[in-house]
Amino acid sequence: MTLRIVRSVAELRAALSPLRAGRIGFVPTMGALHEGHLSLLRAAGAENDTVVLSIFVNPTQFTQATDLEMYPRTEQDDVALAAGAGAHLVFAPSVDEMYPTGFATTVSVDAAITETLEGAVRGRAHFDGVATVVAKLLLAVLPDRAYFGAKDAQQVVVVRRMVADLGIPVEIIQRPTSREDDGLARSSRNTRLSPEEREIATAVPRALRAAQDAFATGIRDAAALTGAVHDALDVAGLTPEYIALVDPDSLEPVASVARPALLAVAVPVGSVRLIDNVFLTPGIDDRIPLGAIEVSHR
Amino acid sequence: MTLRIVRSVAELRAALSPLRAGRIGFVPTMGALHEGHLSLLRAAGAENDTVVLSIFVNPTQFTQATDLEMYPRTEQDDVALAAGAGAHLVFAPSVDEMYPTGFATTVSVDAAITETLEGAVRGRAHFDGVATVVAKLLLAVLPDRAYFGAKDAQQVVVVRRMVADLGIPVEIIQRPTSREDDGLARSSRNTRLSPEEREIATAVPRALRAAQDAFATGIRDAAALTGAVHDALDVAGLTPEYIALVDPDSLEPVASVARPALLAVAVPVGSVRLIDNVFLTPGIDDRIPLGAIEVSHR
Repeated sequence: MTLRIVRSVAELRAALSPLRAGRIGFVPTMGALHEGHLSLLRAAGAENDTVVLSIFVNPTQFTQATDLEMYPRTEQDDVALAAGAGAHLVFAPSVDEMYPTGFATTVSVDAAITETLEGAVRGRAHFDGVATVVAKLLLAVLPDRAYFGAKDAQQVVVVRRMVADLGIPVEIIQRPTSREDDGLARSSRNTRLSPEEREIATAVPRALRAAQDAFATGIRDAAALTGAVHDALDVAGLTPEYIALVDPDSLEPVASVARPALLAVAVPVGSVRLIDNVFLTPGIDDRIPLGAIEVSHR
Repeated sequence: MTLRIVRSVAELRAALSPLRAGRIGFVPTMGALHEGHLSLLRAAGAENDTVVLSIFVNPTQFTQATDLEMYPRTEQDDVALAAGAGAHLVFAPSVDEMYPTGFATTVSVDAAITETLEGAVRGRAHFDGVATVVAKLLLAVLPDRAYFGAKDAQQVVVVRRMVADLGIPVEIIQRPTSREDDGLARSSRNTRLSPEEREIATAVPRALRAAQDAFATGIRDAAALTGAVHDALDVAGLTPEYIALVDPDSLEPVASVARPALLAVAVPVGSVRLIDNVFLTPGIDDRIPLGAIEVSHR
């Protein structure tokens, strides 16, 4: 099957209709594809018969107009990359196709999971926008499985909650964060970093790695672990918006790590907000490899 | 096929899975079935291979605790009536099945259509509750067609908007209001009227009929048409919560009827809120028959 691009839900449904005897895997994205997205597409290809990619820069989840304007749009490159990673169908709707005149429906997830971390910084419109567009995309594709990256861990928590609550018949799969050799989490926004900012940005994974190193020595206390992140960012001259150690399901603060916990940070680097996180799991050592840092010290 | 009752979404999906080659018609209700519901079931049976009925008194759409408490619950009778009207499957979940611990998602329809009429009286939680539960029920059943009665015309507008906006793959069908011989719109809440109140309640269809009579003589002005309703209710000693002449899609006020318009009323009779409506369509005479009124005059 060759890669096909569709622009409307009607075309998408018509294209998928004969393929529903097999399994359908879905990777929703805002485009500007990088290796992280491609690894999701490859995972979807390994576990399903048909792989659908969506490319839609969703205006309703942006709470800053400049961030929306500056968001990279590279559809031609995206399609070529998606074909190489095994996608069969690209759904790339216009804003009007997704939100026609008169559109008036919002899917909201309440409670702690949308009011904390990114919700606290970006406002509740952000996750309303995410929940609504993901509901629409899942209902348009009706996949068996949908794939999300762990970099946006809170987004995955919100999507899982929404899918379970509304009963959308899909399995949500979270895959590990894809990282550059120097540890920086891959993100479409990284392209907006200047070379100098890109160098400084490596402090973010180094800071999370510092907490992982402390965790590996047996430190479990939240203040000590977040303090390690804070100190490492401080050395690089970076001021985080938040450093939070939370339960990975409820996103409620954890005082001491007894079960798996999520250590999440948001750090502005120049004009770009970077977010990143690691899971701290007693008995598991999956520290971020920081290859290029060592290279740069040679 | 005999009637089967299921209590969980999982059972429902398993029961429907082998039936998806045929068409599935769905009638969502809060139980206390009356002839109006049965006519929806029969319509669903005429147009589909399988007919699913849901019975769920949805707490989240009640904005008054006493109304929820007093809502009639007659499941055994309902099941017998549904079987007689051709239902194949009854989905009758518990509140916990629909809203388990941790449930946190709301589907909201904004704009004029939820802030007016019932939304203005009952508060926005009412239509949030309706939109959310109908989304859940539609996603649980995934029917080809879902059937609603015109008595709750605003509800149908909200459901249509929600279904279109989220892209739930279902056709929403509105059927005419079912009425008693004396014109009273059938409603599960009518059973809560005392015999005296039941007699007074006939003023509601009589008042709408008065407006229809005026419309049939060529009157198109909103004030004159709503005035006819008001006067007829006044004669019966009833004070409406609202009498509104609105566009049937946008629910925005209509000053003069050039295209089809919806004339809607809400009237408390004793402790029961009655709602009713008629469509005023130039060139169409579908006035409410008031048979029993004439009988009572003999």
